[in-house]
Amino acid sequence: MTKPYFFEAEAPLTVAQIVSLTGATPRTGAQSDRVIRDIAALDRAGPADLAFLESPDFAAQAPTSHAGACFTSDRFAAEFPAAVTVLISTHPYRDFVAIARKLFPSALRPNSLAGVTGIAPSATVHPSARLEANVTIDPGAVIGPEAEIGARTTIGANAVIGPRVRIGRDSAVGAGASASNALIGDRVIIHPGCRIGQDGFGFVPSPDGHIKVPQVGRVIIQHDVEVGANTTIDRGANRDTVIGEGTKIDNLNQIAHNVMIGRHCLLAGHVGLSGSVTLGDYVMLGGQVGIADGLTIGDGAQIAAKSGVMHDVPAGAKWVGAPAMAAREFFRQTALLKRLASDRGQGTRS
Amino acid sequence: MTKPYFFEAEAPLTVAQIVSLTGATPRTGAQSDRVIRDIAALDRAGPADLAFLESPDFAAQAPTSHAGACFTSDRFAAEFPAAVTVLISTHPYRDFVAIARKLFPSALRPNSLAGVTGIAPSATVHPSARLEANVTIDPGAVIGPEAEIGARTTIGANAVIGPRVRIGRDSAVGAGASASNALIGDRVIIHPGCRIGQDGFGFVPSPDGHIKVPQVGRVIIQHDVEVGANTTIDRGANRDTVIGEGTKIDNLNQIAHNVMIGRHCLLAGHVGLSGSVTLGDYVMLGGQVGIADGLTIGDGAQIAAKSGVMHDVPAGAKWVGAPAMAAREFFRQTALLKRLASDRGQGTRS
Amino acid sequence: MTKPYFFEAEAPLTVAQIVSLTGATPRTGAQSDRVIRDIAALDRAGPADLAFLESPDFAAQAPTSHAGACFTSDRFAAEFPAAVTVLISTHPYRDFVAIARKLFPSALRPNSLAGVTGIAPSATVHPSARLEANVTIDPGAVIGPEAEIGARTTIGANAVIGPRVRIGRDSAVGAGASASNALIGDRVIIHPGCRIGQDGFGFVPSPDGHIKVPQVGRVIIQHDVEVGANTTIDRGANRDTVIGEGTKIDNLNQIAHNVMIGRHCLLAGHVGLSGSVTLGDYVMLGGQVGIADGLTIGDGAQIAAKSGVMHDVPAGAKWVGAPAMAAREFFRQTALLKRLASDRGQGTRS
Repeated sequence: MTKPYFFEAEAPLTVAQIVSLTGATPRTGAQSDRVIRDIAALDRAGPADLAFLESPDFAAQAPTSHAGACFTSDRFAAEFPAAVTVLISTHPYRDFVAIARKLFPSALRPNSLAGVTGIAPSATVHPSARLEANVTIDPGAVIGPEAEIGARTTIGANAVIGPRVRIGRDSAVGAGASASNALIGDRVIIHPGCRIGQDGFGFVPSPDGHIKVPQVGRVIIQHDVEVGANTTIDRGANRDTVIGEGTKIDNLNQIAHNVMIGRHCLLAGHVGLSGSVTLGDYVMLGGQVGIADGLTIGDGAQIAAKSGVMHDVPAGAKWVGAPAMAAREFFRQTALLKRLASDRGQGTRS
Repeated sequence: MTKPYFFEAEAPLTVAQIVSLTGATPRTGAQSDRVIRDIAALDRAGPADLAFLESPDFAAQAPTSHAGACFTSDRFAAEFPAAVTVLISTHPYRDFVAIARKLFPSALRPNSLAGVTGIAPSATVHPSARLEANVTIDPGAVIGPEAEIGARTTIGANAVIGPRVRIGRDSAVGAGASASNALIGDRVIIHPGCRIGQDGFGFVPSPDGHIKVPQVGRVIIQHDVEVGANTTIDRGANRDTVIGEGTKIDNLNQIAHNVMIGRHCLLAGHVGLSGSVTLGDYVMLGGQVGIADGLTIGDGAQIAAKSGVMHDVPAGAKWVGAPAMAAREFFRQTALLKRLASDRGQGTRS
Repeated sequence: MTKPYFFEAEAPLTVAQIVSLTGATPRTGAQSDRVIRDIAALDRAGPADLAFLESPDFAAQAPTSHAGACFTSDRFAAEFPAAVTVLISTHPYRDFVAIARKLFPSALRPNSLAGVTGIAPSATVHPSARLEANVTIDPGAVIGPEAEIGARTTIGANAVIGPRVRIGRDSAVGAGASASNALIGDRVIIHPGCRIGQDGFGFVPSPDGHIKVPQVGRVIIQHDVEVGANTTIDRGANRDTVIGEGTKIDNLNQIAHNVMIGRHCLLAGHVGLSGSVTLGDYVMLGGQVGIADGLTIGDGAQIAAKSGVMHDVPAGAKWVGAPAMAAREFFRQTALLKRLASDRGQGTRS
């Protein structure tokens, strides 16, 4: 990158080390003693940077690249100038990521934004809260009564952790986030501004005013979950809201009360899950997807961006549309309507 | 619930008391002296828990239920094991909620997350602010000049209340929320991270850069309103933004400048109301609905999830789609397109 | 407005001054010495208020207006009562805005919500941070190591500015917002609760759990940008996320890693831009628009509210729908389907 202003590689690596770590095959002429200090996109990379080229969409950038080293497939290896150390791989992007993780280990988890080690003087930690070793509490953070924070976890500036909330080890809570009525696992990342554990949206509609339903469940967030910035996860009403192990949730999602999300799901931005929705394992939801109350989405199902799901989705299915349907059906309908409109347009105008 | 970790029933009730409070009819063999200490979903309930069964979708759970007591309709009363005290009701869910409210009165309104009574030492309350009796100000909260907070209202940790803002009695503002240029009523709940009263999105487009329009109106939030987590309500430009009495707004809604919402409306998650939209009373908007600038939605209208409204909606209408139309018309179009695609599919493939 | 409770005109203007500033033509009988102290919507304006009438939709309000003065076009000038000083203009709204900006100069940029001048005692400013003259830091705000804040910039209550972040002059960061890994220009407005610079959503999907991709780029926000409340802007992965000069972003937008937004774009509420999307200059996106990964939207393109863009959009194009297409095509398809459904309905029912 042109200016490594915020992140600097903690431990630069030689090409020889990179080859050893990934098993990539250097192109003839590769400089095994070249030192790599940073990563960059292919069109921006300089002589100390590592890049990758996997998709043909970006192949035109290869001949003019100034990258120090670049992972790519056999197919594109000859396209680079001689000055680029080309590293041939069957999985260029995966290898690039593996090296990026070696170069920037501290970028794998948010850290204190205030240069704090330990507990900042302006943090408010209730005397009954229990903190394990090497916890970082940034300025202005508030830790409520009987809350428990595991070893090496960071609580960001002005974040708020409610009474009895438990957070595991090696986790991070971002600036200004809040969590209440929640049990949170190890290696969990809660990004800034997340709202976890507030009341779900429960009312008995009535002509005299809607009657509030007490929400007395919890939020359970299992290990290795990541929750994006300003996402909201409501606590359960009469059971728990559960986010399964390894699931990654992007920014500005709304997860309603009693939702059960399985393991290793991926939810893109602005997804909305209504009350009591159940997702299986390895479900993938595109951006701005909405799922109606109480539905079940089977293991491995994929729902395209902007879809509105009105029925249960079988395991492994790919659905699209609002209302959502099997992708093949959706594209058949879309194509038909396009063709009909085109025919009519010709008929009436030509 | 398996572990009442965050909420415990303040006042357990006997079955006899529950019958007396609701008028439900105990099934033969009901144990009137059984003590109910918690609520739970039917499939999770144990001997001290109260559950309910109203929808046939969950009737299969009845025969294996371990609930201490369960409200249900006459239709399902015989499905439960003898050990369950069955309480027959014409409105099982409503009666369940009534008892839940008795068991958990403190769950009806968010409380201090920091175990605070009165004003936390790390709160910043401007000397000219006026606080009535029994106000709770959590750590890190900021109360601006001449703000007024009514009796028994709680301001959450790190929340920010701007100059001259007035908040009524028995209200609650969640952690990290902010309010400026706003007048807020009694028994209002503002969930964590809400943003109330900032500038609306007003610009005069111009090829030399868009010119910012001063936004000098207010936000008026009437009594008994609930606003979900991370929802944004902009102040008016040249009039007020108004949220009518008893209206409930879910998480991550965007309410633009000059919007007028009537009484007792229900807005689900991710709803977006453009500038100067008017909603009547008892309007219901599904999740991810968007309504274009300046439109009027009549009393009691219902707009289905994900709809995009481009025209005024008459009172009592049910609209669906993007662009939204009367539900009957939408489903007619949807069904037709499905049938046509199916016919073509057969014609060209079989 | 009925009660100028939060904003009062700093410098009232006479009609003569208003005429002089805008070049409007007073209707016969206009009182050039009338003093204007506030602005209001036409139906609410009183004798000291300035209003405007530009759209025929509101012309019916003219005959009963009590406004002190009103900008309007020649077409509507005769519709007002004699007591209203009518100011005839070819651009009534633009002139109204110009005068509103004169009356309320302090409303053009958010100010301290806590009545603070300088650095509030409860703010936490790292000793290595550099603040220029006349910076305001509200209570509870946290400024990290080596951060730089330009002259006359305001950092709102409980906002968090991370290490090495640079913010220019005459900017404002709202209450509870956070920024890290970001370089921010002059005259930028970041509204409350914005999340800038956190990790983008980058994972290598894997059956053994998704592998987190280090995100080591920055967020670059150029001069005169405005970012709405609770909007999230992720930092780049291997390049920068860039928001171009003069672009205005509404509330609750999600801007993913590596997005490049050009100059003077307008993005309405709930817009979601996936990773590596590129917008040209003067692009306009309606509310709840979503754009898929890596797409390019050409200069001056306009995408209607709720559209889901699946393909690159040419400069100047107007697209609608999900999946989005040229507006003319979309409306042709919509009209055809409506007609077909209507024909069938008649055929089978009448």
